[in-house]
Amino acid sequence: MIRCVAIALFLFGTTTVIAQTDDSLLIARLSDEVLVNGKAYENLRVLCKTVGGRLAGSPQIYKAETWGMDALKAAGADKVYLQECSVPHWVRGKERAWITYTGTGGKPVKEPLDVLALGNSLGTAGKKGVQAPVILINDFDELEKRKDEIKGKIVFYNHPFNQKYIQTFRAYGEAGVYRHDGPSRAAKYGALAVVIRSLSGSTDNYPHTGAMKYDSAYPKIACAAMGLRDADRLADLLQKGKKINLFYESNAHFLPDTIGHNIIGELTGSESPAEYITVGGHIDSWDPAEGAHDDGTGCVHAIEILRALKAIGYRPRHTLRVVLFVNEENGLRGGTRYAEEAAAKKEKHLFALESDAGGFTPRGFTLSLRGPQLDKVRSWTPLLLPYGVYAFTEGGGGADVSPLGALMGVPVGELMPDGQRYFDIHHTRNDVFENVNKRELELGAITMAGFLYLVDKYGL
Amino acid sequence: MIRCVAIALFLFGTTTVIAQTDDSLLIARLSDEVLVNGKAYENLRVLCKTVGGRLAGSPQIYKAETWGMDALKAAGADKVYLQECSVPHWVRGKERAWITYTGTGGKPVKEPLDVLALGNSLGTAGKKGVQAPVILINDFDELEKRKDEIKGKIVFYNHPFNQKYIQTFRAYGEAGVYRHDGPSRAAKYGALAVVIRSLSGSTDNYPHTGAMKYDSAYPKIACAAMGLRDADRLADLLQKGKKINLFYESNAHFLPDTIGHNIIGELTGSESPAEYITVGGHIDSWDPAEGAHDDGTGCVHAIEILRALKAIGYRPRHTLRVVLFVNEENGLRGGTRYAEEAAAKKEKHLFALESDAGGFTPRGFTLSLRGPQLDKVRSWTPLLLPYGVYAFTEGGGGADVSPLGALMGVPVGELMPDGQRYFDIHHTRNDVFENVNKRELELGAITMAGFLYLVDKYGL
Repeated sequence: MIRCVAIALFLFGTTTVIAQTDDSLLIARLSDEVLVNGKAYENLRVLCKTVGGRLAGSPQIYKAETWGMDALKAAGADKVYLQECSVPHWVRGKERAWITYTGTGGKPVKEPLDVLALGNSLGTAGKKGVQAPVILINDFDELEKRKDEIKGKIVFYNHPFNQKYIQTFRAYGEAGVYRHDGPSRAAKYGALAVVIRSLSGSTDNYPHTGAMKYDSAYPKIACAAMGLRDADRLADLLQKGKKINLFYESNAHFLPDTIGHNIIGELTGSESPAEYITVGGHIDSWDPAEGAHDDGTGCVHAIEILRALKAIGYRPRHTLRVVLFVNEENGLRGGTRYAEEAAAKKEKHLFALESDAGGFTPRGFTLSLRGPQLDKVRSWTPLLLPYGVYAFTEGGGGADVSPLGALMGVPVGELMPDGQRYFDIHHTRNDVFENVNKRELELGAITMAGFLYLVDKYGL
Repeated sequence: MIRCVAIALFLFGTTTVIAQTDDSLLIARLSDEVLVNGKAYENLRVLCKTVGGRLAGSPQIYKAETWGMDALKAAGADKVYLQECSVPHWVRGKERAWITYTGTGGKPVKEPLDVLALGNSLGTAGKKGVQAPVILINDFDELEKRKDEIKGKIVFYNHPFNQKYIQTFRAYGEAGVYRHDGPSRAAKYGALAVVIRSLSGSTDNYPHTGAMKYDSAYPKIACAAMGLRDADRLADLLQKGKKINLFYESNAHFLPDTIGHNIIGELTGSESPAEYITVGGHIDSWDPAEGAHDDGTGCVHAIEILRALKAIGYRPRHTLRVVLFVNEENGLRGGTRYAEEAAAKKEKHLFALESDAGGFTPRGFTLSLRGPQLDKVRSWTPLLLPYGVYAFTEGGGGADVSPLGALMGVPVGELMPDGQRYFDIHHTRNDVFENVNKRELELGAITMAGFLYLVDKYGL
């Protein structure tokens, strides 16, 4: 701590720090409360271990609603309620995949592939799987050049996760189009199915699922992701000229839309109770694991902020609304619904903050702010630097709060934790409680609480 | 990356960044090289998995010497050699511990304790263990107040790791005196043995070993650390008034001093080959695990810096000397020997940098610099901020380079990675390769390489 204060002094001059002593003391009280009496880690354990993966429409998401309401009540919320919205109900079902080719000495070889259907995909339902030759495609340019070779084949997009980027989210953004749009772009040229290299730079072989979207103009073909070792192996065989047949069977499908809920807890503001500051994460998660970092950590961050403020006896001026959004992963209906209702009710919203980039050690916030508003927020840096936060970056705000920005012009932001480990486990079977560090998780809650305290006190 | 450049511009103004474009490009080349072709992670895997734990004097440390020389040669060092020094040879041997007390209904209860002897301790050699009532002591003040109750007992220091500190090394420093000095301070009042609460804030039960030192004025009693769950359980029983007997048997002992070696590789300077910049970590590690974060990561950081500079075709002006120091953990003889020989030879040393705080995502450097030298280094912040480094903190420099500072006045420094996870695994059976993240490790090498490039080019 002493070290970091020295840094703050160096970066910003002593006057700022001295002028804001009351604020630094309040944030230190929040920090002590979270680090000593924090409930975020235990809340996360219960969510991960007693509820588990919880996609919209699944039995688990309703169990998670009970968990969320209980946790918000225990945290001391003045009011806890559910906000209903229609949600899609995608079901993965069973799936299997393997490759076959002619090995040394003409022997037939069959090797299993560890795959996960992409979210929202329709699988090979009605058929007993699809089997076809694989064609290796590195990017969309190559797809276009070789469009005449696609028909009747299974397209294997092997677009790499760019390791050169320090910001891993940049690599995710670039590679993400192959997961999201790749299936329909291949179907356009007659592909029978699509498999992709997972959006990751990991050293293991976990496949990474995640949302895709069909273009209704083309056949809705089955699609799945494979881990990096399988992808490297398959690409290597194909590059050596092996003729590979891939078998993929999946009965992923949609059930009719059903009812879901945003889970909301409020700490009523002392001066302007009808003006809101929203903080949240999403309660739904992909099905194969526990949704620990994505986004159990965001949920427990938001709950912990309310709890810590209440525990130290600090009541914000505006009403703090903790929202655990439903259906971020495959529809964003919860975030959309929240903004639509706020707009319909002409609610006054000061700011909305999200945590959906993992429970890792925090480094800053991405914000929809610019100009003087951004300058104002940056002037608070000395107060948050002792907790490792130094970057207030223009452009951002998470998926669930973005509709509030788009619909009502509410300034939005998102916690930016260190992202080096996130895409090792994101959307995999490995996104489990054991991969969350207690103190890193708590520091996220501390820095968000400190930041929201300043927004509440000084405005934007 | 784009995000962070924006931050750099905000913090330091555009002129600095523009003026240093050549430097930022060179550092970006180093970064790309490490992230795309890096050998640090694979080098670490080989060290951890084929050598393992490697205390000075152990058979493994000699295996590690071969590993180090091979890795330095493969990295492209112009010269690779060993520097001999005498090292202590402490051997843990076998140990076991349990507690006994009267349970409900008068039934005798026996519960095992998972313990690790403190490094340099002498165990209960010659005796078949020691068994005595346990006395709970929270700090040295309490020890002094209750000194008359100590005789014939086993002292249990339960000093907590202060969770309030954001900088975990501060908690380590405060609690560390109980491990280092606690045994002799208890022996002074007639204690038969000492057990301590491990120096950690972890959520598991791994005991943490680490060096202690006997005061020769008092009996050299056996001493060991237990994990936090065991410590909490034992403290709880004692606080409830249970009479607890603790049995501890250990045959930890010293063999005669033996020969060890610092492993050195050089990249000859282009302009001032007889002036040195040292960069290193320590090759020895505690015995119960693989010494991955402590300090395999420091060793592979240093080797990777040499490799990356060579790979991009950049030759430093001064000779870069990679040193893998021996015997940091229980004697510091390697670091001392290196400085003594440098002083005896009247070598000219520009700077010495160490990595011995884990292979986690980097945040800055601690430095022995002050005044204008520190200001100069801080003016380089915009060049390293894109890689997550922003803190250049006065006061510091690691253990192994400190003798160079003390003896010759050489400026020294140490990489400061994010420390939230370090004391979960430090000196435990859990300090294994699997707990090191590839990209976090690589970012450490990148930021050290960039920093040393600037020191080499601009001086201090």
